[in-house]
Amino acid sequence: MTQVPEGTGRLLVIGAGLVGTSVALGARAQGWQVWVHDADPDVARRAGAKGAGEVGLPTSDPDLVVLAVPPMAIPTVAAEYLKRYLTSTFTDVGSVKAHVVDETQALGADVSRLVPGHPMAGGEVPGPGAARADLFDDRVWVLTADSRADAARVEQVAAFAAAQGAVVTRWDAAAHDRAVALTSHAPQLLSTLLAARLADQDPADVQLSGQGLRDMTRIAGSDPGLWTQILLANAVPVLDVLDAIRADLDTVAAALRSVAAGSGSATGAAEQVLRDAMTRGNTGRARIPGKHGLSPAEAFATVLVSVTDRPGELARLFALAGGAQVNLEDVRIDHVLGRPTGLVELTVAVDQETVLAEALAADGWTVRW
Amino acid sequence: MTQVPEGTGRLLVIGAGLVGTSVALGARAQGWQVWVHDADPDVARRAGAKGAGEVGLPTSDPDLVVLAVPPMAIPTVAAEYLKRYLTSTFTDVGSVKAHVVDETQALGADVSRLVPGHPMAGGEVPGPGAARADLFDDRVWVLTADSRADAARVEQVAAFAAAQGAVVTRWDAAAHDRAVALTSHAPQLLSTLLAARLADQDPADVQLSGQGLRDMTRIAGSDPGLWTQILLANAVPVLDVLDAIRADLDTVAAALRSVAAGSGSATGAAEQVLRDAMTRGNTGRARIPGKHGLSPAEAFATVLVSVTDRPGELARLFALAGGAQVNLEDVRIDHVLGRPTGLVELTVAVDQETVLAEALAADGWTVRW
Repeated sequence: MTQVPEGTGRLLVIGAGLVGTSVALGARAQGWQVWVHDADPDVARRAGAKGAGEVGLPTSDPDLVVLAVPPMAIPTVAAEYLKRYLTSTFTDVGSVKAHVVDETQALGADVSRLVPGHPMAGGEVPGPGAARADLFDDRVWVLTADSRADAARVEQVAAFAAAQGAVVTRWDAAAHDRAVALTSHAPQLLSTLLAARLADQDPADVQLSGQGLRDMTRIAGSDPGLWTQILLANAVPVLDVLDAIRADLDTVAAALRSVAAGSGSATGAAEQVLRDAMTRGNTGRARIPGKHGLSPAEAFATVLVSVTDRPGELARLFALAGGAQVNLEDVRIDHVLGRPTGLVELTVAVDQETVLAEALAADGWTVRW
Repeated sequence: MTQVPEGTGRLLVIGAGLVGTSVALGARAQGWQVWVHDADPDVARRAGAKGAGEVGLPTSDPDLVVLAVPPMAIPTVAAEYLKRYLTSTFTDVGSVKAHVVDETQALGADVSRLVPGHPMAGGEVPGPGAARADLFDDRVWVLTADSRADAARVEQVAAFAAAQGAVVTRWDAAAHDRAVALTSHAPQLLSTLLAARLADQDPADVQLSGQGLRDMTRIAGSDPGLWTQILLANAVPVLDVLDAIRADLDTVAAALRSVAAGSGSATGAAEQVLRDAMTRGNTGRARIPGKHGLSPAEAFATVLVSVTDRPGELARLFALAGGAQVNLEDVRIDHVLGRPTGLVELTVAVDQETVLAEALAADGWTVRW
């Protein structure tokens, strides 16, 4: 194996989409010599024009090959290039991991040089045009190598990911796939199916939509091509989550149906079913880590401020918060159609709530807390 | 009917929860004489102690009675008090509307004096403690009176809602219930069912959760008691939406099952099913109105900025945006566990994207756009 000098070396990126081109740009910024290749020559050319590296394949083994092709295509492409570059270390950037090494191994390739990875960053605009050198800065980058991978190669890929600014973390591949089925893939499908209900609806109905619906459908705007691949590649874990949700949905729907049927005695039982579901939802919601791992309810408080919808108002607001030494955990802006004002929701640590609200009120803002 | 002077009069609020107490506080701030009553004397006392008005019932007819009791209880309470106060105008504040007048009428009360309403505001903390006089400022307040309501009473309630700062809009009651089933009640249930999946999950799995899951489960933190009532009261329209989503879910699950079964020929068909679902989701998402009614995709662009997690940084950021005369449509803060920096996502009108990004970059911020 070629000794890779600390930091840089020769990199081949296969697949010049958003993630692949971003990897290439990030590596180039650190001094790597980079080649980019894509099955679509036009896409590769666009990545090259963006400064991602030399378009084409190196004639001798690169130190590292990053496979940034769609999840279902990874094993075939990995096997092809593992057989072409016999000393290179390989990694991929797909959102689904368990099939990568298994299927590549089944194709007879040397998987000791393949370290599967999942940088958890992306964007709503696919393709090289939206790529950027710092896409992975402050993002989690999961590696799922098992005992089949050469330990030094794993360290090599971990160092590469860390050099891109990412937080590197190690997971079992199957556990990763189950986790993202639950936390990413099933949520994507639910958002999609909910948003799809709006597609052939009377547009007037959507006028009554609030922030809840906007939140619930935000990821429904994601790229169909990429997500079709992700869902296909993680079919079994996603199905497990969907089946469980569907069973719960059936229970809730049966309760509502008993009420709709007008049976007065059924209402008490239906009420219990709905209340239990809502309460379990509360419990699950509280499991999602906030910053520093604290659960949102215990750690944070919300202050609402009415803000006029014109440039500079938010600056005044945040300048005041900064002056009061308050650190904002989150900010939401809730506009009402046709109104010249909006509500700004400021999330702060519980012990900073009063400080912030009083500072804003003293400065003349309309504050609710 | 007592002539109500422009602006103020005598108001009775029945139900001293968050919304009822907020109505009382808002009316008092405008000079109304207010009584608050609640089936739970302790709740009424807490509302009174908060300055919501005199605890108890007026001995002569008030000008306006606001029913702020749970949705399923409205008809019974409405009928009781319509028969007690024979000249008063009535409105309610429930999230479900079609049953209100029908069931009150079936109880033999004079529904010409009942103007059903739905102020679209609330909060995550139920009860009078979280009430505030300006809860309805800049919020939509729907009225669903039909021909059974006296036109002057409708105007009276509309004026009351407008005086609370709300944007008053008129809807057919059944259309309102179908609309909120789609835009609010079904989304609430999906968020709840998704979050419930996290309740008995390995906490480690949730570590891989990103902003998508946080968005999808935010409303799962809502009050079980209130939401059970809302869902029961709107059972049929909610069921219609759930049944449609379940049918789509079954289609998607069947596609994934064919892939999981390992049939190669099935993958092409499954891919088409998933892609169609994602594409319809894109279409539906684009239906949700942004500010000024523009669809998000055509009107807005996003600029990402890395921000150090300490007081004052956001103030610096927004001061710069304000100085550049850029109006922020939305702000999101994306923290990464254990990292001292966060990514701030600024949404601006498309024609302000470059101005903002260049201003930030010139000031030394790490900007992605």
